[in-house]
Amino acid sequence: MARMDYDIDLQPQFAPLTLIDVGAYAAQHEPWANRTLSQVNDSVVRMGVLHGDFHWHHHEDEDELFLVLEGRLLIDLRDRETVTLEPHQAFMVPRGVEHRTRAPERTVLIMVEPAGVQPTGD
Amino acid sequence: MARMDYDIDLQPQFAPLTLIDVGAYAAQHEPWANRTLSQVNDSVVRMGVLHGDFHWHHHEDEDELFLVLEGRLLIDLRDRETVTLEPHQAFMVPRGVEHRTRAPERTVLIMVEPAGVQPTGD
Repeated sequence: MARMDYDIDLQPQFAPLTLIDVGAYAAQHEPWANRTLSQVNDSVVRMGVLHGDFHWHHHEDEDELFLVLEGRLLIDLRDRETVTLEPHQAFMVPRGVEHRTRAPERTVLIMVEPAGVQPTGD
Repeated sequence: MARMDYDIDLQPQFAPLTLIDVGAYAAQHEPWANRTLSQVNDSVVRMGVLHGDFHWHHHEDEDELFLVLEGRLLIDLRDRETVTLEPHQAFMVPRGVEHRTRAPERTVLIMVEPAGVQPTGD
């Protein structure tokens, strides 16, 4: 069954001007952790640890960018080919576009989206 | 002498819903390339290729987040210890804080900042 939500923290976990060691921080987390690392102006930079399938969803008013650091992320889109992201590959899903992420292995990624967005979508 | 500017492109180089292979794209660029990879809501995600010292500067109204993918980035701050970022380490410099980046080796990083910001600062 597809995962419907994250273990999420919407508050920034790192103060400005502090080192954010994403690799070490990710190693402390199980799937499906979603942590807000930092707020940058009106956006947040989040870390996700995934393993398995997420559910189909979209964000009505928000673009979302994914950048893989470790592992491999598949992004399914309606009427398009599935995209596979290897480490240091990124993909931007614009607002309104339905998508589903899948991680066949443990995967660590960075997400950029507006502050306050619920990552589980509509 | 400290570098005063980037070879910068402020327009997004990748359309939404296209694969952004940051590693391969970076390999096509010399220091000091700065490319806007994607706009995400009101923010942009940029790639920088650095080697050497940048000049001291600040952004009056904009926060800026750095995430290192390859190499090593030193961030000097007034009245604080220099921060060293290894791959997959990040650091957020809030608006108004003067900083200087230095890359003793070829370094590839991701920057998150508001759309329209001139990365050379004030």
